Amino acid sequence: MIPSYKFVLAAARQLDGVAHRTPVMHGRTLDKLCGAYVLLKCENFQRTGSFKFRGAYYALASLPETDRARGVLTYSSGNHAQALALAGQLLGVAVTVVMPTTAPAVKQAAAASYGAEIIHYDPAQTSREALGHQIAQARGLTLIPPYDHPHVVAGQGTVAKEFLEEVGSLDVLLVPCGGGGLLAGSALSVRALAPQCRLIGVEPERADDATRSFQTGRLHQVHNPDTIADGARTPSLGQITFPIIRRYVDDMVTVSEEAILQSMYFLWERLKLVVEPTGALALAALWEGKVAVANQRVGVIISGGNVELRQALSWFAQGPPCSQR
Amino acid sequence: MIPSYKFVLAAARQLDGVAHRTPVMHGRTLDKLCGAYVLLKCENFQRTGSFKFRGAYYALASLPETDRARGVLTYSSGNHAQALALAGQLLGVAVTVVMPTTAPAVKQAAAASYGAEIIHYDPAQTSREALGHQIAQARGLTLIPPYDHPHVVAGQGTVAKEFLEEVGSLDVLLVPCGGGGLLAGSALSVRALAPQCRLIGVEPERADDATRSFQTGRLHQVHNPDTIADGARTPSLGQITFPIIRRYVDDMVTVSEEAILQSMYFLWERLKLVVEPTGALALAALWEGKVAVANQRVGVIISGGNVELRQALSWFAQGPPCSQR
Repeated sequence: MIPSYKFVLAAARQLDGVAHRTPVMHGRTLDKLCGAYVLLKCENFQRTGSFKFRGAYYALASLPETDRARGVLTYSSGNHAQALALAGQLLGVAVTVVMPTTAPAVKQAAAASYGAEIIHYDPAQTSREALGHQIAQARGLTLIPPYDHPHVVAGQGTVAKEFLEEVGSLDVLLVPCGGGGLLAGSALSVRALAPQCRLIGVEPERADDATRSFQTGRLHQVHNPDTIADGARTPSLGQITFPIIRRYVDDMVTVSEEAILQSMYFLWERLKLVVEPTGALALAALWEGKVAVANQRVGVIISGGNVELRQALSWFAQGPPCSQR
Repeated sequence: MIPSYKFVLAAARQLDGVAHRTPVMHGRTLDKLCGAYVLLKCENFQRTGSFKFRGAYYALASLPETDRARGVLTYSSGNHAQALALAGQLLGVAVTVVMPTTAPAVKQAAAASYGAEIIHYDPAQTSREALGHQIAQARGLTLIPPYDHPHVVAGQGTVAKEFLEEVGSLDVLLVPCGGGGLLAGSALSVRALAPQCRLIGVEPERADDATRSFQTGRLHQVHNPDTIADGARTPSLGQITFPIIRRYVDDMVTVSEEAILQSMYFLWERLKLVVEPTGALALAALWEGKVAVANQRVGVIISGGNVELRQALSWFAQGPPCSQR
């Protein structure tokens, strides 16, 4: 089932008073660096530290009562897990999370702190999808996947909806892309609210499956790609997200690991925003000049801020990361 | 000259469209930790990364044209210097900054990037006040001190004014205190807009001159105190700030270095805010339970976010700083 913008409106009503209306930030130094008017929608300030709370909560809230009573399961690199864990806590639904042993400890601890049961797996040995389906079936749990789910996509669509409502208009909107939930949701809102706005998805060069899928029209995959942007290590777009992205997104671009790190450093140092690598993806496209934006109004979605501070230190300590600063 | 709330109103008009109206943040986890409803006014997002821009800009904008043409000088641990440098750039006034060699490199670089001339001094050898006055006199520059100046105090008062206007009411307002510019300015706004609100200044235990001055009624000093909160290393309250604080502030409390670091870590990790140690002072008072706030509406001013990332992360690396988390 491919959701429409009506689903986004329904999600917005459900999330009203539950999710934060996150602030839009603007910095003149960033404008100068980019040669454009750049607005950042800061979902790092969303509950549980990323936009994922929106889709997870809306999906759980939309579940029939009998399914809620049995509980839900998900697999996730972390942000969706935390988000679903909190949504479950708020809605009284038991949540089980299948999480890679390599997920940042801060993400694992957060999911557990919201009362979720954590089941670990080794990403080099098994796929999270296979293990997730297996456990869900054995225990009678409803699977709430991290992106390939109509309510999840619709919930994520509320980010771009809020963004456009707050800033009025945008010439370009840049959105990070892993499995495509945020990008597909953004597409629904942008096409409904700002049909002239160019919508561009951004992913790491090292995990460019969505870009290849977008360009060729068939679903490409990556396996456990070596990118700092852990939220974009997803194997491929989904059955729901791919057609939406293929139809409504104007372009996909990829960015280097260096640009991700530099953008992230800039966001921390100059804009005082703690942003995780995946959260800096969209800005990295501006940083590397991958999108023509001269003198335009550019929206950038900062998707999340869940990163271990000590890990970030070790990245920043490897030398002056900001050659352009 | 002791400024009144009318000065704050005049400053607010002057700053309209120039300074950011910084966001007020709220986090449920913080509420639970503190047992209160806690609202953070985030001046780390102010231009130049701290509230200091408000007072510096208003002071420069209020200067007679002949004085502006000759230029201005200040001494500062950094944030006021950056703020004055940017204000000078915006208003076309030459700015000279006397800065300790020990000031964080990020602060020195920022002041220089706005076109200020930097003159270094060794804080162990000379006082910044003495050197500042000497150079100002020799060069015919107008001294714009970092806090003991009526327009500076009035400009800083716009923080609490905005805060109260946005959130409606507060039972308590916690404000970091170095030389007292922000605290005195807050006092003017709080007494005018929310006379029932308890106003409490917070400083490091290791730099408790303002607390002693407040309690005894005479001006106490500290010399180059060893606190992580570099913005609170000021030698004493000023001739203008002290009487305002003594008259209008309800109480002063001090916090440990550990609480400052823990609060700072919490702000980074959980609230995704890059905050400098001085910026975490007011929250540290809640963290250590120094103020009774059960079930109250508590305002906390986060004063700034200018800190070298590698320095901050090295503090965080010295062990798990958050025993209460």
